[in-house]
Amino acid sequence: MAGELTVSIDAMGGDAGPSVVVSALARTIQRHPDVKFILHGDETVLNQLIAKRKGKFAGRVSVRHAATRVAMDEKPSFALRRRRDSSLWHAIESVKSGEAQAVVSAGNTGALMAMGMYQLGLIDGISRPAIASVWPTQRGQVVVLDCGANVECDSEQLVDFAIMGEALSRALFGLPKPRVGLVNVGQEEVKGHEAVRNAAHTLRQSDLPMEFCGFIEGNNILEGAVDVAVMDGFTGNVVLKMLEGAAKLIAFFLKGALKRSLMSRLGALLAAGALLALRRKLDPRAYGGGLMVGLNSVVVKAHGGTDSVGFAYAVDTAIDLALGGVNDAIVSDRAGVRPEAVAS
Amino acid sequence: MAGELTVSIDAMGGDAGPSVVVSALARTIQRHPDVKFILHGDETVLNQLIAKRKGKFAGRVSVRHAATRVAMDEKPSFALRRRRDSSLWHAIESVKSGEAQAVVSAGNTGALMAMGMYQLGLIDGISRPAIASVWPTQRGQVVVLDCGANVECDSEQLVDFAIMGEALSRALFGLPKPRVGLVNVGQEEVKGHEAVRNAAHTLRQSDLPMEFCGFIEGNNILEGAVDVAVMDGFTGNVVLKMLEGAAKLIAFFLKGALKRSLMSRLGALLAAGALLALRRKLDPRAYGGGLMVGLNSVVVKAHGGTDSVGFAYAVDTAIDLALGGVNDAIVSDRAGVRPEAVAS
Repeated sequence: MAGELTVSIDAMGGDAGPSVVVSALARTIQRHPDVKFILHGDETVLNQLIAKRKGKFAGRVSVRHAATRVAMDEKPSFALRRRRDSSLWHAIESVKSGEAQAVVSAGNTGALMAMGMYQLGLIDGISRPAIASVWPTQRGQVVVLDCGANVECDSEQLVDFAIMGEALSRALFGLPKPRVGLVNVGQEEVKGHEAVRNAAHTLRQSDLPMEFCGFIEGNNILEGAVDVAVMDGFTGNVVLKMLEGAAKLIAFFLKGALKRSLMSRLGALLAAGALLALRRKLDPRAYGGGLMVGLNSVVVKAHGGTDSVGFAYAVDTAIDLALGGVNDAIVSDRAGVRPEAVAS
Repeated sequence: MAGELTVSIDAMGGDAGPSVVVSALARTIQRHPDVKFILHGDETVLNQLIAKRKGKFAGRVSVRHAATRVAMDEKPSFALRRRRDSSLWHAIESVKSGEAQAVVSAGNTGALMAMGMYQLGLIDGISRPAIASVWPTQRGQVVVLDCGANVECDSEQLVDFAIMGEALSRALFGLPKPRVGLVNVGQEEVKGHEAVRNAAHTLRQSDLPMEFCGFIEGNNILEGAVDVAVMDGFTGNVVLKMLEGAAKLIAFFLKGALKRSLMSRLGALLAAGALLALRRKLDPRAYGGGLMVGLNSVVVKAHGGTDSVGFAYAVDTAIDLALGGVNDAIVSDRAGVRPEAVAS
């Protein structure tokens, strides 16, 4: 099955551009000997970069020329209308045509979502796509969604997110019955607004391949209380960015604290390796960016400011999701909830 | 003016109870020689604790007996009906009667809010109270609200929160024109849901003693981009608890990283003082808990798990807010927005 897999890559997206993508590919190609890649972008630039790899990419990577690229600050609606000759559009088109089974871009998030919706459509039974993200916890990792695709969510969408989250968690981490929690302002059944209470009611009565843990609070997410944390896209986006801010603030305080005395300076010098490891662990680029879940293919958004390590990790994630059959799982799990939702 | 100030204290609230409150008071009483205090709670216990202070409290602290206390897990509606003989109820009553000008409790947040609403009522022109919190940033501090009093907020409430936030920021930090930002999922005018866009519209056209910075994102809050960050209570509560979780996760990672090698263990030993200072800086107890703003008096909620340092800080905050005339400022600022809101 792995022999069948091709990943389509937007080689012009992100702040760093094609050189980061090609060095990422040099890593990925060795880790996944059965996977093929299509690179979309400026063919002169790409062929030059590939030539430097001295035949390492031969037979594994093909280049497709795209005349333009979507800028990071272009509006999704503008990109959708005016950038059909871009590397991003063509990268998605390769998936739509069936040539590739997954697409990865470090480019404009809104444009990726808009073009993905337009070209690929939604998974059967899912009303809205979501952006999922994987964060570190005290016990391992947690899949968090929605991180910003939907600023307002009804209970049906929250149920969709829970289903997509458990399917992602199973495909990425091999958990047979992921623990799923709905993020709320308290753990009692009466807490929160109607959408979150109704979603909990539906999930409690469903027979999905998950362990539904009910409501969790903000502090429970990073404790590792659940494998999947579900919330609306407004809260998820603010929390995701807040977490980036918290990591930076703490690094800033730590730096200040360690400079205060000769003793602590010396200590910091001795512990430099450990502190660097910590900084890497908290670097958002390490988490493979966002997973655009709910679209009719595997779509992974690498962090816009990523380096080749981060981009390679995003490609690994796309491969894991495609091989794990995440979208088939979502279709069948969503269908399992449907009759009850209609009956109620 | 300071000579007139009396602070009413619920001495039975919080996990630690009256001994923490009395040691906190021993600190506060020296810092504020003109302020008087009323302690509500079990008079036998309180008089014993005060007797140990050998006359230090004489003439400054009076004790009022309360037969019961509100438990930390009691429902607000139950507490409101059944705990009118509690230390919390009586502490608020002292403010209502005019004997005291501010009230502090480390007890049940929901019960404090419910009893506060019932006994004190709302500030003229404010439709809902909010819970504000003060967080550290890379540039100083930021007032964040609402941290959980209102799970759903319309634009009028977000405007109220912005006004209450700037008034708090002026009273606490003496900033003449605090920078105020509305938390959203992007900085462009078209981003977010209707409530947040309409609130921005009203604030842009108002002539309040603040510098309205428009929309900010989650990462901007801890960078120190604004002095006041406004959001709905659902998002604010999740973000506040997430921040506690992030601080714990990073402490956990740091501990792990520093234990990995002999070098880093030695480094950690030398830097122990600096690391302890960092841990204190990130301890939520250090931030004086929540400010219940919008009620017709100064109401401060100390963190339930606080120690005497944290409780003393909460009392300091209550004194600053009362002396700073925060509620008078809210009344006049809110009145300044009213005509425009009606006209639109």
